[in-house]
This record gives sequence, C-alpha cells and structure tokens, in this order.
Amino acid sequence: MGSDRAPAPEVAGALRAVREQDVDVTLVGNATQLEAELAREGDDRRRIAVVHASEVVTMHDHPGQAFRQKPDSSMRIAVDLVARGEGEAVVSAGNSGAMLATSIFVLGRLPNVERPAIVTELPTPSGPLVLCDAGANVEPKPSQLAQFGVLGAAYDRIVHDRSPRLGLLANGSEPGKGTQLTRDAHALLTAAAAKSPFQFVGYVEGSDLFRGVVDVIATDGFTGNVVLKTCEGIAEGLFGLVRQELDKTALARLGSALVAPALRGLAKRIDYTEIGGALLAGVTKPVVIAHGRSDATAIASAIRAAAQFAARALPDKLASALAALA
Amino acid sequence: MGSDRAPAPEVAGALRAVREQDVDVTLVGNATQLEAELAREGDDRRRIAVVHASEVVTMHDHPGQAFRQKPDSSMRIAVDLVARGEGEAVVSAGNSGAMLATSIFVLGRLPNVERPAIVTELPTPSGPLVLCDAGANVEPKPSQLAQFGVLGAAYDRIVHDRSPRLGLLANGSEPGKGTQLTRDAHALLTAAAAKSPFQFVGYVEGSDLFRGVVDVIATDGFTGNVVLKTCEGIAEGLFGLVRQELDKTALARLGSALVAPALRGLAKRIDYTEIGGALLAGVTKPVVIAHGRSDATAIASAIRAAAQFAARALPDKLASALAALA
Repeated sequence: MGSDRAPAPEVAGALRAVREQDVDVTLVGNATQLEAELAREGDDRRRIAVVHASEVVTMHDHPGQAFRQKPDSSMRIAVDLVARGEGEAVVSAGNSGAMLATSIFVLGRLPNVERPAIVTELPTPSGPLVLCDAGANVEPKPSQLAQFGVLGAAYDRIVHDRSPRLGLLANGSEPGKGTQLTRDAHALLTAAAAKSPFQFVGYVEGSDLFRGVVDVIATDGFTGNVVLKTCEGIAEGLFGLVRQELDKTALARLGSALVAPALRGLAKRIDYTEIGGALLAGVTKPVVIAHGRSDATAIASAIRAAAQFAARALPDKLASALAALA
Repeated sequence: MGSDRAPAPEVAGALRAVREQDVDVTLVGNATQLEAELAREGDDRRRIAVVHASEVVTMHDHPGQAFRQKPDSSMRIAVDLVARGEGEAVVSAGNSGAMLATSIFVLGRLPNVERPAIVTELPTPSGPLVLCDAGANVEPKPSQLAQFGVLGAAYDRIVHDRSPRLGLLANGSEPGKGTQLTRDAHALLTAAAAKSPFQFVGYVEGSDLFRGVVDVIATDGFTGNVVLKTCEGIAEGLFGLVRQELDKTALARLGSALVAPALRGLAKRIDYTEIGGALLAGVTKPVVIAHGRSDATAIASAIRAAAQFAARALPDKLASALAALA
C-alpha cells in the first residue's frame, strides 16, 4: 500500500514478477482494494496470495510512531510474515523511514551491526557502483560510517562477485580533507581493510563516481541521499539539454530521430524503475526499499532483487563479513 | 603560477582576455617564465603587465602556512596588488584553500560576514543555478550556512538580475528532515527571508537542482563540493554512456554523426572551462577561484567574470545585502 499510486503498481508489478520470475508473492494491504485491482488485471492467481491489513503507514507518519501506533499496518504485517518465516524477503515502496524502523524492531539487527543502512547501485559506463548509506542515517558516528563501507563492500563481493575497491566520499583526495567524521572513518577503514577482502582506496571525490576507480562508495545518509538524487536530477536535466540542442537544426533533428532508439535504451539503463529497490543492509532478513514513484516495472525489479538477495542468503553472508572484523 | 600547467594557460588566457574584453591584466609570477611564455605567444603587450614573484604556493602547501611562509608568493603579491588598489579583482587557479586564507587575511572580510564562501554556477535547462558554499567551509555553523544562502541570493540578484528563490539542500523536503545543522539554518533563513529580497522555499533535494524550482542553493562546503564534482563526473559518465549506445547500430552511428555538432555545443555549455571561475564571496574585493585544470579558455572566462564582478562593485552590494539583515 506504500507507493504514490498504491496499490495499482504493487499489484501489476507482483503479477509481472510471478509471470517472469520463479517467485511467489504475498500482497499485504486492504484486501478489498487488492482483490479489485487483481480482478481488473484479470490474471491468474496461482502464485499470488493476499493478506489483509486494516491500516496504512503514510508519508506523513513519523517512522517510530508508525511502528507503535499502527500495529495492523500493511508494512508491519508484511515484515511480521517474514519474521515468522512465511516469506523470505519483503519489499515496500512506502515511507522508507518507517520501513527502516519497523524492520529493525521486528527483524532485528545482524550481530555486530551498529546501524542498518541502505545499499543502492548507480549505473556507470564501467558497471554498477554500490553506494552505502543511501539515506538511512543522516548523522552517523565514524564507526557507523566505516561499517557502511564494510557492508557495501560485502554486498558487492556477494552480489557482483567482485574484489571490491572501496572509497570514502569526501571533498578532496588528500587524507587531511573531509570532516572530523570522514577523517575518523578513514582511519577505521584503513585498519579494517588490512583484515578484509576489500581494498580501501581512501577518499574519492564526486567526480570519481563515474570514472570506474572504485566499486563501492561509503558515505553518510545525508550526503548519499543528496548525491543519488542529484544524479537522478542531472540525468533528467542533461536529457533536457540534449533535447534542446538536438532541436536546433534540421540536420540535428534528422540525426535525433535516428539516435532516438539508442537514447531510449540509455534512458532505460539509468532509469530508477529498471534498477528497482535498494537493500536495507544489516537486518536479519532481506528488506528491499523501492522508490515511492515506483511503477509496475520498478516493483517487479524490486521483487527480483529481493528474491535474489534471499536466494543468496545475503543477510547471513553480510553477518559473516562483519564477524571477520569483530 | 597556480594552474596544473602554469603559467602557459594563464598567459594565453590573459592575452585572449585583453584581445576580446575591455580589460588590463597584470600577470604575477616568475618573470622569466612569464616573459618567455609571452614571447612565445608573440602577441602585443599593450594591456599586459608583469610583476615578479620569487615564490609559488603549491597544491601541497597548507593554506595557512602558505600565507605565512611564502610572503613573496605570486598568490600573495597578486592579492596585495588588489589590496593596494593597483588591481580591481584577482584571479587564481592555484591552491584554493591558500587563496581563501590569503584573501581573508590580506583583503579582509566584509562587515557582518562570518565566513567567506565560494559561489559558483551550474548550467541547467532553465538557466544558471547559483550554489554557495562550493567548498570553502566543510563544517559550518548554522548561522554561517544561513549566510551562505544570503550571499548566494544577493549574488544572484546582482549578477543575474533575478528575484531569487533560495533553497537549502537536504535529504528530503519536509522541515523535519536534514541534520541539526540544516534544521537550525532552515529556521534562520525563514526568519531572514522576511526582511530580504529573496524567497526562501525551504529544503530542496538533489533531484530539484535541475528542475528550475530554485535559483540559488545554500549548502555546506563538504556537500557543495561533492555535489558539484558529482555533476562534473556524471556529465562525463553520461556522455560515455551516450557514446556506447550511439555506437551500437549502423543507423545510430549515422544519426550520431549528424547530432555530433549539437552535442559538442552541449558539451561546451556544461564545460567548466566555459564557466570559468567561482567567486569568493564575503571578502572586500572580487576574488575569482579558477579550476586547477583550467586552460586558456577557462582563464579568459575567469578574467571576464572577475572584471564583471569589479564593474558591478559586487563586494559593496553584497555588504549592503548583509547590512539589511544585521
């Protein structure tokens, strides 16, 4: 019930997922609305279940209060199902702060995890760039920021099968740059790298994000959120500028028509709806947080990611990676 | 003597500036090198002067130490010239921290300015977006962050003749979002806007930067630097992705050849060398900080910006804007 146009994208996305992926989906929410939406889609129901929830967490609910004051929310019941083993992973496009709080309270943190954090991916010419934290913790302590790097690197190793190069986002590459927070985290990551299967390359700058010099970026949730949304915004803005330029001459307009299919392919590559959801790393089960603006494609992508995280037992492997450092 | 390939870009840029603009330029640095470079360019010298400096501040010098330990540096002598009224504005592509420290010590802060900050501009489909602070103050206090917004808005009003809409960069649009720093600055800017000729629209997110919803963004120097360099990086990265897509089919390659001139025009619009330098706002004279990677075009642009800031008496007008709030 969480996306901006819920529950239509959730229902359509779930139907697409069960058709295209080897997955069963339980839809949790207002059963009347969900059944009406399923009937409208007119699809077969063999791998779709519906569980009723009488309440909905909105974007206006305070994260902690949503958890306490709406015990029968779709969000809470979905997480409860996974806690009881009746689901292997959970996806929500709703209030991400509330999803974070609910997941931490109900599922619990992995051993050694100080603060669960959001791991997401950015497409770059040299492959996906993993970023952690993408917005869960806006004012972390140095030990927490360092752990975001460790979680991101472990995720990268497991999901992309890489030997990750980890960078700490800062305003310059020299170790004296940054804030007290980043300087302290830099020291902690330097020490952690000695006994970890990742390489810590030190500070990286915003201009390095798309240059293929690192696989994983550690940052606080404030900066991570701003960077991700800036990328989203500039991608839109640049396509706007490209369209302005390509409309200026007849030759450019002709060329533009010829390159349009390729540019649509590109738009798809950088489209958040194709990327799907972000992982809440550090809790005991796979929790995928999807964009509030998700459409059916985005929901199906988020379900695919959640199923993969469950199949790979990602939480257990993240716990092992942290235990090696403890 | 400050750019990565100094003094060639500085000399060529100065010559271009005196040819194309109504401006006189004094080059400060190693006179032998500067004269040799001028001789090589073989241009007339009517509006170019050379002042010798025996020392150079490098990128490795600590900002404060550079000021104290290199009293005969080109940076120091250039700023001294302006302090004595023998120049109206100063441009440097060197160590920006040292330029900041030198400018503050030698020229002094404007009345009511707590911390001078860097104002820069980003091209967007709806016009230039002014951003302050672009990197001078990585851990400002709330009053300083609020002042970066006031300085940016005053700059926008004077330079672009707009009635600026000012936003405070954060990880969400609701006033409860952000950090303690941004929440306190939000309250200060709300109060300041009541007696200022700018509109404070509250928090804006990274995705809003290119949507034309604000003219000016206030942020701390850490986040500002990361955002600017991310934009630089993603612009490069997106063009890389565009090139990959446009090389995939014969039709796309043909179209690509036709759109190439338009895309080159676009690359020029978002090229930092065309944008030139950033203003160090809050000191008593116009100080323009150019990119270390500046070429002659970038230096000429920075000189043009410096001359315009001087012609418009920008520091005096920024002081008036701040006095109205004091």
